[in-house]
Amino acid sequence: MTSRKDAPLTIGVDLGGTKLAAALVTEDGQVLCDVRRPSEPARGGEQIVLAIAEAARTLCDAAGDREVVGIGVGVAGQVDPDTGAVRHAPNLHWTDFPLKAQLEDSVHLPVAVLNDVQAATYGEWVHGAGHGVDDLVCMFVGTGVGGGVIANGELVRGAGGSAGEVGHITVDLHGPVCRCGNRGCVEAYAGGWAIAERARAAVRADPALGATLLAREDGDIDRIAAHTVARAAEAGDPLARRLVLETGEALGAGAAAIVNGFNPCLLVLGGGVVDGMPQLLPIVDEVMRRRALRAAADELRIVPPKLGAHAGSIGAATWILRQLGRSGDI
Amino acid sequence: MTSRKDAPLTIGVDLGGTKLAAALVTEDGQVLCDVRRPSEPARGGEQIVLAIAEAARTLCDAAGDREVVGIGVGVAGQVDPDTGAVRHAPNLHWTDFPLKAQLEDSVHLPVAVLNDVQAATYGEWVHGAGHGVDDLVCMFVGTGVGGGVIANGELVRGAGGSAGEVGHITVDLHGPVCRCGNRGCVEAYAGGWAIAERARAAVRADPALGATLLAREDGDIDRIAAHTVARAAEAGDPLARRLVLETGEALGAGAAAIVNGFNPCLLVLGGGVVDGMPQLLPIVDEVMRRRALRAAADELRIVPPKLGAHAGSIGAATWILRQLGRSGDI
Repeated sequence: MTSRKDAPLTIGVDLGGTKLAAALVTEDGQVLCDVRRPSEPARGGEQIVLAIAEAARTLCDAAGDREVVGIGVGVAGQVDPDTGAVRHAPNLHWTDFPLKAQLEDSVHLPVAVLNDVQAATYGEWVHGAGHGVDDLVCMFVGTGVGGGVIANGELVRGAGGSAGEVGHITVDLHGPVCRCGNRGCVEAYAGGWAIAERARAAVRADPALGATLLAREDGDIDRIAAHTVARAAEAGDPLARRLVLETGEALGAGAAAIVNGFNPCLLVLGGGVVDGMPQLLPIVDEVMRRRALRAAADELRIVPPKLGAHAGSIGAATWILRQLGRSGDI
Repeated sequence: MTSRKDAPLTIGVDLGGTKLAAALVTEDGQVLCDVRRPSEPARGGEQIVLAIAEAARTLCDAAGDREVVGIGVGVAGQVDPDTGAVRHAPNLHWTDFPLKAQLEDSVHLPVAVLNDVQAATYGEWVHGAGHGVDDLVCMFVGTGVGGGVIANGELVRGAGGSAGEVGHITVDLHGPVCRCGNRGCVEAYAGGWAIAERARAAVRADPALGATLLAREDGDIDRIAAHTVARAAEAGDPLARRLVLETGEALGAGAAAIVNGFNPCLLVLGGGVVDGMPQLLPIVDEVMRRRALRAAADELRIVPPKLGAHAGSIGAATWILRQLGRSGDI
């Protein structure tokens, strides 16, 4: 479907700890215009609301005489599904911040707020890799590991707004400590920070084995990062290959848990770590299929996301459009 | 609400590898009459269909002049959500058996087929422990470990009908081998068979430590079962207590995975192992809360199921009633 000139537009905002991205989006998920600025959490919630409102005004101006009917905001945090308040967003230093209410007061447009990864999942479902299916799971593997779920043709937000947290599924009761404080989470193996930490620890533990990795960063162990490991593994370094294998094992086991739980027909797997370490894909695929029940995994396909960096804002814009019941013919 | 005399009745069937239970159920989930017989899988699918049809006739007779509008069947296997065919039911020796079609031909009533644990979950949701909430997860821990999920006020069946398989979530990448062939599944720690196997292995490995357990079964190691462990733990036996703790750790980690994934407000935890080993409950509660994200677990309550052995047939009966759109005012 192509966007009709008289069809309503919405604004989608992707609000993280470092960046605020806002886009003017058509009903078929095309970005007509977008703006980005630092989110600067230190200045406080009210100032961030003003920054969103200002971005919205810029985008409304860009819309010209086309109607902008609402704003969807995806926030890096836990959002109350009933009130649109942000319960807890560590990177924004927010606890119980009434984002929906404050932003509506400021922009005089309907606002819907949801978690940023849920928004990206919604975007990928409606306009991206998941178009046309009723049950899918997204896993985004970057510095952290996040996810989202569509079941029965609906976004699963969860009773408290935090559904889809695949990164903190335990895959090894006795595994390494995670940023969340537990042991053996998927993220404690596969998050970008964890790959780097595991690599540095391995280099320290066995300097001979780690010599190649260390040499790639000119002997500075603190510069060893996930991409260092990815490139060394590509070049055949045994330690780097082992680290990639362990990362894939954990991601595959986490994916199997979520596949057993939801039995989706599609697993959308992406994010910076997956993009930078493409060797992971066949490992995750094999481990997931080995560890999930056959009934759950047999007809499952693993696919990359399609919307790229705009997934969150397209998803948030689509979410508010659906909430307003003006979703066109999708 | 009390059942009206003119309200439609349905029949719910719970079909497992050993037992076929059928019940005549009111729209408010009351069992008016029930029949049970062995399922005898060896006699083949057509004979089982006839046995269900015969049970249904008995129950229709018992209904007198009240109308019976349909039959719901919960089957211990994977059910195709579109066709009502049983794709795979190892305990019934079925692969791609067209249960819905054959039973409809036989009984001339509308039939709906779903997985047995999903049926029990549906029953607990509508008429049992989960009444009134929109998001819940059931975990039933018996010989095997099964589960079911309600999200957004709907049963999650999954793309292939196998959603809710919490028993085969990996909690320990390097853990003991499960009946499914993988390592470290929840069931490989917490299933009744696994508790018994782990206890026997521990007794063999350390006869002095295992003396109490062995004595409880008159020196016959093969008689050591989950209930032996439960009773010995109650009496303070250190090995038995360790086994219970490990069981609770694995169940708690599995529960945390599902809580992180679905963010339910209610976890219904039951089954023979939990009933027989009540010491598990506080352990599962503590481990789940420690391992799940706070956002997901903070407002979660763990409760026992309410419908007991009838959960499956009440759920299946309620499911067909809902499918027929005659669900009263629930």
